[in-house]
Amino acid sequence: MAVTRGIVPIHTSALKDPQTLADVFRAHGVELPGWLRNSKDLVSRFDLVSPTDFRYSVPELDRYFSEESFVRHKARVEVALVRVLARRKLISARAADLISTASRRVTASETYEIEEKTKHDIIALVRAIQSHIPNVEGREEAVAAVHRTATSYDIVNTANALRIRNAFRQVIIPDLIKLEGAWLKTLMEHKETLQVGRTHTQWAEPVTFGFVLAWYADRLGRRILQLRSAVNALEGKFSGAVGTHGAASLFVPDPAKFEAEILGVLGVKPARITTQIVPPEQQVDLMHATVSALGVIAGWAQDMYHLQRPEIGEVGQPRGDDVSASSTMPFKTNPVGLENIMSVFKYLLPRTIPGYLNQLSLHQRDLTNSAVERFDPEAFVLFDYSVRRALRVTKSLKPHAAQMRAIFDRSAGQIIGEPLHLLLAANGYQTSHETVGRLADKARETGRPLMELVRADPELQQFIERFTPGQIALMSDPSRYIGIAPRKAENIARYWANKLRIEL
Amino acid sequence: MAVTRGIVPIHTSALKDPQTLADVFRAHGVELPGWLRNSKDLVSRFDLVSPTDFRYSVPELDRYFSEESFVRHKARVEVALVRVLARRKLISARAADLISTASRRVTASETYEIEEKTKHDIIALVRAIQSHIPNVEGREEAVAAVHRTATSYDIVNTANALRIRNAFRQVIIPDLIKLEGAWLKTLMEHKETLQVGRTHTQWAEPVTFGFVLAWYADRLGRRILQLRSAVNALEGKFSGAVGTHGAASLFVPDPAKFEAEILGVLGVKPARITTQIVPPEQQVDLMHATVSALGVIAGWAQDMYHLQRPEIGEVGQPRGDDVSASSTMPFKTNPVGLENIMSVFKYLLPRTIPGYLNQLSLHQRDLTNSAVERFDPEAFVLFDYSVRRALRVTKSLKPHAAQMRAIFDRSAGQIIGEPLHLLLAANGYQTSHETVGRLADKARETGRPLMELVRADPELQQFIERFTPGQIALMSDPSRYIGIAPRKAENIARYWANKLRIEL
Amino acid sequence: MAVTRGIVPIHTSALKDPQTLADVFRAHGVELPGWLRNSKDLVSRFDLVSPTDFRYSVPELDRYFSEESFVRHKARVEVALVRVLARRKLISARAADLISTASRRVTASETYEIEEKTKHDIIALVRAIQSHIPNVEGREEAVAAVHRTATSYDIVNTANALRIRNAFRQVIIPDLIKLEGAWLKTLMEHKETLQVGRTHTQWAEPVTFGFVLAWYADRLGRRILQLRSAVNALEGKFSGAVGTHGAASLFVPDPAKFEAEILGVLGVKPARITTQIVPPEQQVDLMHATVSALGVIAGWAQDMYHLQRPEIGEVGQPRGDDVSASSTMPFKTNPVGLENIMSVFKYLLPRTIPGYLNQLSLHQRDLTNSAVERFDPEAFVLFDYSVRRALRVTKSLKPHAAQMRAIFDRSAGQIIGEPLHLLLAANGYQTSHETVGRLADKARETGRPLMELVRADPELQQFIERFTPGQIALMSDPSRYIGIAPRKAENIARYWANKLRIEL
Amino acid sequence: MAVTRGIVPIHTSALKDPQTLADVFRAHGVELPGWLRNSKDLVSRFDLVSPTDFRYSVPELDRYFSEESFVRHKARVEVALVRVLARRKLISARAADLISTASRRVTASETYEIEEKTKHDIIALVRAIQSHIPNVEGREEAVAAVHRTATSYDIVNTANALRIRNAFRQVIIPDLIKLEGAWLKTLMEHKETLQVGRTHTQWAEPVTFGFVLAWYADRLGRRILQLRSAVNALEGKFSGAVGTHGAASLFVPDPAKFEAEILGVLGVKPARITTQIVPPEQQVDLMHATVSALGVIAGWAQDMYHLQRPEIGEVGQPRGDDVSASSTMPFKTNPVGLENIMSVFKYLLPRTIPGYLNQLSLHQRDLTNSAVERFDPEAFVLFDYSVRRALRVTKSLKPHAAQMRAIFDRSAGQIIGEPLHLLLAANGYQTSHETVGRLADKARETGRPLMELVRADPELQQFIERFTPGQIALMSDPSRYIGIAPRKAENIARYWANKLRIEL
Repeated sequence: MAVTRGIVPIHTSALKDPQTLADVFRAHGVELPGWLRNSKDLVSRFDLVSPTDFRYSVPELDRYFSEESFVRHKARVEVALVRVLARRKLISARAADLISTASRRVTASETYEIEEKTKHDIIALVRAIQSHIPNVEGREEAVAAVHRTATSYDIVNTANALRIRNAFRQVIIPDLIKLEGAWLKTLMEHKETLQVGRTHTQWAEPVTFGFVLAWYADRLGRRILQLRSAVNALEGKFSGAVGTHGAASLFVPDPAKFEAEILGVLGVKPARITTQIVPPEQQVDLMHATVSALGVIAGWAQDMYHLQRPEIGEVGQPRGDDVSASSTMPFKTNPVGLENIMSVFKYLLPRTIPGYLNQLSLHQRDLTNSAVERFDPEAFVLFDYSVRRALRVTKSLKPHAAQMRAIFDRSAGQIIGEPLHLLLAANGYQTSHETVGRLADKARETGRPLMELVRADPELQQFIERFTPGQIALMSDPSRYIGIAPRKAENIARYWANKLRIEL
Repeated sequence: MAVTRGIVPIHTSALKDPQTLADVFRAHGVELPGWLRNSKDLVSRFDLVSPTDFRYSVPELDRYFSEESFVRHKARVEVALVRVLARRKLISARAADLISTASRRVTASETYEIEEKTKHDIIALVRAIQSHIPNVEGREEAVAAVHRTATSYDIVNTANALRIRNAFRQVIIPDLIKLEGAWLKTLMEHKETLQVGRTHTQWAEPVTFGFVLAWYADRLGRRILQLRSAVNALEGKFSGAVGTHGAASLFVPDPAKFEAEILGVLGVKPARITTQIVPPEQQVDLMHATVSALGVIAGWAQDMYHLQRPEIGEVGQPRGDDVSASSTMPFKTNPVGLENIMSVFKYLLPRTIPGYLNQLSLHQRDLTNSAVERFDPEAFVLFDYSVRRALRVTKSLKPHAAQMRAIFDRSAGQIIGEPLHLLLAANGYQTSHETVGRLADKARETGRPLMELVRADPELQQFIERFTPGQIALMSDPSRYIGIAPRKAENIARYWANKLRIEL
Repeated sequence: MAVTRGIVPIHTSALKDPQTLADVFRAHGVELPGWLRNSKDLVSRFDLVSPTDFRYSVPELDRYFSEESFVRHKARVEVALVRVLARRKLISARAADLISTASRRVTASETYEIEEKTKHDIIALVRAIQSHIPNVEGREEAVAAVHRTATSYDIVNTANALRIRNAFRQVIIPDLIKLEGAWLKTLMEHKETLQVGRTHTQWAEPVTFGFVLAWYADRLGRRILQLRSAVNALEGKFSGAVGTHGAASLFVPDPAKFEAEILGVLGVKPARITTQIVPPEQQVDLMHATVSALGVIAGWAQDMYHLQRPEIGEVGQPRGDDVSASSTMPFKTNPVGLENIMSVFKYLLPRTIPGYLNQLSLHQRDLTNSAVERFDPEAFVLFDYSVRRALRVTKSLKPHAAQMRAIFDRSAGQIIGEPLHLLLAANGYQTSHETVGRLADKARETGRPLMELVRADPELQQFIERFTPGQIALMSDPSRYIGIAPRKAENIARYWANKLRIEL
Repeated sequence: MAVTRGIVPIHTSALKDPQTLADVFRAHGVELPGWLRNSKDLVSRFDLVSPTDFRYSVPELDRYFSEESFVRHKARVEVALVRVLARRKLISARAADLISTASRRVTASETYEIEEKTKHDIIALVRAIQSHIPNVEGREEAVAAVHRTATSYDIVNTANALRIRNAFRQVIIPDLIKLEGAWLKTLMEHKETLQVGRTHTQWAEPVTFGFVLAWYADRLGRRILQLRSAVNALEGKFSGAVGTHGAASLFVPDPAKFEAEILGVLGVKPARITTQIVPPEQQVDLMHATVSALGVIAGWAQDMYHLQRPEIGEVGQPRGDDVSASSTMPFKTNPVGLENIMSVFKYLLPRTIPGYLNQLSLHQRDLTNSAVERFDPEAFVLFDYSVRRALRVTKSLKPHAAQMRAIFDRSAGQIIGEPLHLLLAANGYQTSHETVGRLADKARETGRPLMELVRADPELQQFIERFTPGQIALMSDPSRYIGIAPRKAENIARYWANKLRIEL
C-alpha cells in the first residue's frame, strides 16, 4: 500500500492512541500503510486472550484463516457471482468489473464498522463493496447488482470451502507430508535397530525401532489420505435462502447450472442439495479427520516421551526448543515439545462434539452453527502447529541404539519364553504355556535365566532335543526373533514414499 | 440343542434356584436346552442395569453382539488358524478337525468359568476348546496345536472385524436403507406439497415437503455410503504379539502370506502393519460414521418434532407406539418416539472421545482400549434401535398438506419480500433492501400486506412496471416461488433409489 | 505510561513497519506509549484467527485474561515471595524493594523475547525482572534473590488462582447477578401473566410467564453460588518442585507457614498438599460450573427462541443488535442474539473433557495440562460474553401477554382434561383416564370442545354433579388452573433478591 | 416367594422354552419362584450386549439400579403419596393400605407387559398397582386413588433421587472410604520411604512414597465430600404436570406443604421450583463428581502402572486377578487391573456431555433427557466397579523400597542441582542457574557426578565454603532433601482418617 513520502512534524501528544496518530498523519495528506490505516484495530498480541494468536500461531496460515482473509475470500465469492451474471448478460461486463475492483478494496475493518449499523456481517460486506464502487458511469447498475440472487450462506459456505481447502492443500497437508517424510527417513536408518517390544508397559517380543516408526508412519499416511478426501469433499452452494434456487429462478432458466458455473470460477463443487446451508456432515468429517490425525501424532509423541525416561533412555533430544530446564532445577531436560503435542491433542480432542450438534440445524437452518464454525480455523492452526512441532522434534530426536540393545539384553532371558512355549508345544509338549509361565516366574524370583532353568529340567530337555538347529540358534540368540519386522518396515516406507511422492 | 424325551418326576423343592433345577434334570439323563443348561447364568432381564438389554434391544443383532456370539466368533477365528496350519501340513488334518468340532461346542459360560482361574479371557477360550477335544487318537497333537502362533488380539481384533462387519451388512445397513426408502417414498408423494421455509425459526422462502425430506434423504444416503466404507475398512490381523510375525516365523517362511491365508478363510482383510493390535483409527472411523449418521436422523426427528407443535401442526402422528398420553393429562399426544431418537443421539454423541484416546496405545499396545471396545456393540445396538424407531415413526407420520398451505398463506405477505427486493434491484432500484425491509416492518406493525404498501408507493410503482408478466404473476402468487424444489427432490429420490437399489 | 512532549519531524518512510516507526521516535528521545513501545507486537485484530479476540471479546476482562495481564500477575506473585523473604530477614528489604520495582516494569513482550533464548517462560520472567534491577547498590543481592525457593508452577498456579478469582469476583459474577436481576424484574412484572404450559412441545396445564422465568432464575441463582464456591476453592502453592517444600526447607524451619505467608500477601489459599502443581480438580470444578451455568442460560435462550416463532409469537424483540434481517430477505427478523448464546454453549459444551484428563498428571506432574490451561481464560471470556448478550436480549425482549392469552384460550378446551380426569376419579369414576383420553381424541377430531362432549355424556354427568362449586367454576374458566404459580414465582424472586442483594 | 411342595411329572418337551416350562408347572398348581415365574424374562447373561451386566457388575448395587428395583422404588413413591392423601383424609386409610399392599406386589415384568398396551411406563405402573388391589370392599376407592395429583415425573424424579442417594450412601461411598483407608494405610507405612520425584517423566527432587499416596488420598477425600454433597443435593418433586401444583390445588389448600409431606415420608427434599421435572443441574453435578472422582483414581492407577515398568520396578503386584500372562507369552506379568481402571475412566470420561444437554429441556420439559438418564445407573455401577478394583489392586500392590532407593541413588548426582543452585545464589553467586545447568549437562555427558565437577571449580568453591554445616551435609546426602514430605503425608492421613472415620 502506497505511502506518500515527506516529513510530517508530529507532536508527541498525537501518540496517545492509534486513532489520533492516524488522524494527524491523514491531516498531512499521508495515506497510512495497512498496519496504521486501520489503526483503531491495532492491538498488541499480548493484549490477546486466545493463545492461538500469540503462542501457537502459524503465520503461513494467516492468509487463509485470519478474519481479514475470510473477508477477502467472501469478497472473491461475490466477484465470482457477478462474473457469471455478466457472462450470462444479466448485468453488463462493466458492472462486473466495477464490483470486482471494489471487492479487492474491501477490508475487514470497514465491514466490522458497517456491521455495527447493519447488524449483519454479509449485508455489511455488500455495503462495503458498494461503497468502493466509484462514482462513474455504470455505478448504479453495479451497486444494484452486488450479491444478486445470493443469500449470506452462499457466500459464507463457499468462502469457507475455498479457504479451508486451500489452507490444507497449500500448507497443512504439505506439512504432514514433511513429517511423514522425516519419520520414513529415521525408519529406514533404523529398520534393523533392535528394540525390546513392550505391551502393557512390560517387555514383550522384540521389534526394531524402524518397525515402530513404520507403525506410526503407516497410520499417519492413511490419515493424510483421509484428510485429503475430507478436504476434497468440501462443497459450496449458490442455491439461495432455502436451497430451492428461488432467487436465481427469477433470472435464469437453469439455476442449478448457474450455481455450478459460479462455483466453477472458484474451483469449488456444488452440494447435491442444500437448505440455506451445505450439508453439515462435510465439516464434522474434516474435524474428525483432523482430530484423528493428531491422535496418531500424539500416540507417537507419547511413545517417544516414555522412551526418554531416565530409566529407559532409548531416545534422547538435545536441550533446545523442545527440551527445557526447570526454573529451579537447572539440571532438568524436560521433553516439553512432546508434552505440548499431547496437550494440544487433549484440547482439540472433543472438537467434533459441536460439529455433530451442528448436524441438527432446525428446519431450513438455524444459526447455532455460526459461532462454532468461526472457531474451526483455530483448530486447524493448532493442528498444524503440532504437526510442525512434531517435525522439529523428529529432526532432533536421537535413537540410542546401544541403550536399546542393552535393555533388550536384559529382557532376553524372559522373552525367549514365547518361542520356547511355541516350540515345546509344536514338539508335542502338552502344557507348555503353564510350564514356561511357572519357570519364568521362578526365573524372576531367583534371578536365574529362564533357559538355564529349562535346561535343568530333564523332561523338557527331551522336547528341546527335537528342535531344529535354527530353532536352537534362536533360543540362544533371541535378537534373531524379530520376524519380518525390518522388511515390513521398509515396505511401509516404500509404499508411502511412492504414494505421497516423498524422496527416501 | 437336542433334548432327550421323556417324563421327569420333579419335586418342586428343586425349583429353588436354576442350578438345582438343572442338576435334577441332569440326574434323569436329560440334557437341558441352552437356556437351562447354563442355568447359573440365567438372569431376569429386569435384574439388569443397562437399558440396552431390556428396553432398547434389537434381537436380530444378538447373534453378532451378545457375549455368547463374541465367544463364537472368536472360536471361529481359532478354527480358521488351524485350518491353514493343516493346509500347510504343520498339523494334521485330523487335529484341525478335532479342534474345529471342539470349537463349535464352546460356550461363553465355560470360558467365563475358566477365566476365573486363568485370569485371561483368551487363555480361557483356548482351555475351553482343548477341554472339548475328545480322548481319541490325535488328541495330544490337537490340544497342543490350538492357538499356535497366535496372540490374543489376533483373535479378538479379527473376531470383532468379522462380527461388526456382518452385523452392519446383514442388519444395520439394510435397516438404514429401509429408512431411506421410506423417506424417499414420502418425498415422492409430497415433492410438490408447498410448505413455508423456516430459517432461524422465522418464515423464509417456500419449499416443498418433499424437498425437505430430500435434504435428509441425501444426507442419510451419504452416511450409508460412509458407513459401508468404514465397515469395509475393518481389518483383522495374525501378526502375533508385537506385530512382527515372530511366532509365525518359527514355522513358516512367509508369515505375511500365512496371515493373509488365515484371514482369507474368514473374508477379512489384513492390516498393512500392526503392533499387538490393528490400527485403532478404523474403529473410531466407524464410530464417527455411526454418530454422524444418527445426527442426520436426529436432525430429521427434530424437524418433524417441531412441525407437530399444536401451533404449527404441519405433520401429525396417531396415538400409538410413538405418541403417548401423560399419566395425568389424558388428552396429551406426546411425540415420544421422536424424542427418544433425539435422546439416544445425545447419549451416543460423545462416543468418539474414548475412540480417539484409544489411538494413543503405549508402545506395542496397552490394554486401556479394552473396556472401551467392549461397549462398542452397545452403541451399534442403540443406533440400530433408533434407525428402526425412525422407520416406524416415518411410516405413521402424516403430512398435513392443507395446514402447510394455510401457514404458507399467512407467510406469503412477507416472504414476497425477497423476489420483490431482487426484482426492484435488478430493475435499477438502488436501495431496495432497505426499502423493502422498512415496508415489511410497517406491514407487520399495521397488519397490512406488504404488496399493498408497495403498490401505494408511487416511486416503487414505476420500477414494478418494468417487471415481466411472469414476475408480476409470481408477486401475486408466491406459491410459485419454489424454484426447482420439486425437480431437485425427485432427482435426489432417483439418485438414491438407483444407488441403494431401492424401489420407488 | 509517560510520553515526553514535543514535536518530532518524521519522514513517512518510517511508517513502513511498526518497528521502524518506534525506532525513529526513540531516536528523538520520545518514550513511546504502550501500544507503540512494543510495536513489533502490534497486530490488527483482523489478522487474528481466534474470534475470541475480535468478535466475542469482553474488554473488561483483558486486565485479567490477556497475556500481558498474566505476566503482570505472575510478576506480582514473585514480589509477594520476596516480600516474605525480606520480612523473615532472609534478604534485605532493599533487595525486595528493588525486585518489586523491577517487577512492575516487566512486559509480556520482553518475557517472550527472552523465552526464545531460555526456552522456558518462567526463567524468562525471572531474567526480565533481573534485567530491570538497576545498577545500584544491592543489585547483586536482589538479582540472586529473585524467585528464590520457588518452582515455576508456584508462580503459575498462584497467578492463575489470583487472576481467575478476581475476574470472576469483579466482572463475571457481577454480570451474572445483573442478568439474574433482569430476569427477576420481568418475572415480577409477569408473575400473573397466563401462558399455556408446554411439555413435549404439546400444550399442557397453564403456567404464568413469571413462573417460567422463576424456573430459570432459580437455577441461575444456584449456579452463581456454585461458581462462587468454585472460585473460592481456587488455591495457590509455594511448595516447590515436587510439593515437599524442599527448597524452602533450605532456608526456613517452617516451610508450610512460609508458604501461607506468601499466599497471604495475595489473599490466596494454599493447597493442603501438592505435587509440582495444585490439585487439578479445582480447575475442572470451575469449568464444570461455568459450562453448567451457561447451560441454564442456553436453556432460557432456547425457550425464548421458540416462543418467537411466527406461529407462536408469545415474546418478541425489536430489530437491532440481536435481531437481524437476512442479506436477501429484508423482511426477516432473525433472533440471532439468542442463537449466538446457544452456539457458544455448543462450543463450550465439551470443555470439561480436557480438564478431566488433566487430573491424570504423571507422577509429580507432566506438562500436558499446560496448553489446555492456557485456553481456560478464553472459555471464561466467551461465557461472560454470553452472559452479557443474554442481559441485552432480556432487556429488549417483550412478552406479549395478549398473544399468550390467545393461545391459552385455544388450548383450554383440551387442557381442562387434567382437572376433569382428577375430579372424576376423586368422585369415584374408575376409568376416568381412559374416558377423558378418548373424549379428548374425539374433541380433536370433531373440533368440538371437550367439555361439550363431557356434558353430552349422561354417565359422566352424574359424577360432575358431585363437583364442588369451585371445581365447577374452574372447569368453565381453566385460566384459574395455575395452582400456586404466581406465589411461587414471587417467592423465588424474593429469595434470590435477598441472597444476591438485588433490588427488585 | 412360596413354592407349593410336591412332585410334578414333567415331560421334557416342556423344556423348549421358559414360557412353556412355566405353563406346565402352573398347570400343576405350582406357583413358581421369582426366577421362573416371569420366565419369559429370563435371559442368559451371555446373551447380553452391555458388559455392565455380565462383566463389570456389582451385585450389591442391583437392589438400587436394576430395572426391577427401579419399579420397586417408583411403587414406593406412589405409596408415599397415598399415605399422605390418607393422613389428610382425602382418601380412607383403608384405600391407602390396599394400594400399599398392592404396590409391593408389582413386578417390572408386568409393568413392561402393560406398557406394551399403554405405551407409557408410569400409566403401566398405575395399572399394575390397580390390578393387584383385591376385589374387596374399598377396592373402587383405592383404584381411583392411585397416583392422584401426581404426574409421571413426580414419581420418576423422586424414585431416582431415592435410589441413587441410597446406592451412594449404602454402597458406593463406603467403597470409596475403604479405598481411601487402604491408601492411608500404605501411606503411613511408607511415609518415610524415599523415592525419586519425577516431573515430565524426568528425575526431579525426592519425595517419599507415602507422600505420593497422600497426594492421591487428599484428592480422593475431597471428591468423596463432593460426591456426598452432590448426593445430598438430589431432590424430588410433587408439583405436578408443569410444576405449578395445579392438580394438588384441586384437593389441598397448601400444595407446597403437601409436597413436602409426601417427600418427607421418603426422606427426600423438594426442589424449590420445578417444571414437570426437577432442575437438571443436580444430575449433571453428580455425574461430574463421579467422573472427576474416577479421574483421581485413574491418576493413581497411571502412576502405579508406570512404576511397574520393568526398567523401574518400584512397585509390583503378584500374578492374580489383576496381573495376567499373555496367551502366547507365558512369562508376562501384565498389570491388567490398573489398565482396566484407566479404560473405564476413558469410557466414562465424556458422560457429563449428555447431562449438560439435558439442561436445555424445552419449555416445561421435553423428553430428550429420558434415555440419557436411564443410562445413569450404569455409569455409577462402572464407577463402583472401578473403585472396588482399585481397592483390590491397592491391597496386592507391593512397594519395593530397595528399588526406590536404588533409583534414587542413580538420580542423586543430578538432583542435588536444585539445592546447589539455590545455596549458591543465596550466597551471592549471580548466575548459579546457568552454571549449575552447564555443569549438569557436562556431568551427564562425562558420567561424572555433578558435585565432583563443582568441587573442581575454584570459583564455585569459594561460595560453597559459605554454606552452613547442615547445608554441606545435605549436599553429600541428598536423601535428606525431602523437605516436610513425611510430616505432610502423615497430616493428610490423620486429617482424612478423622474426617471420614477411618481407623489408621
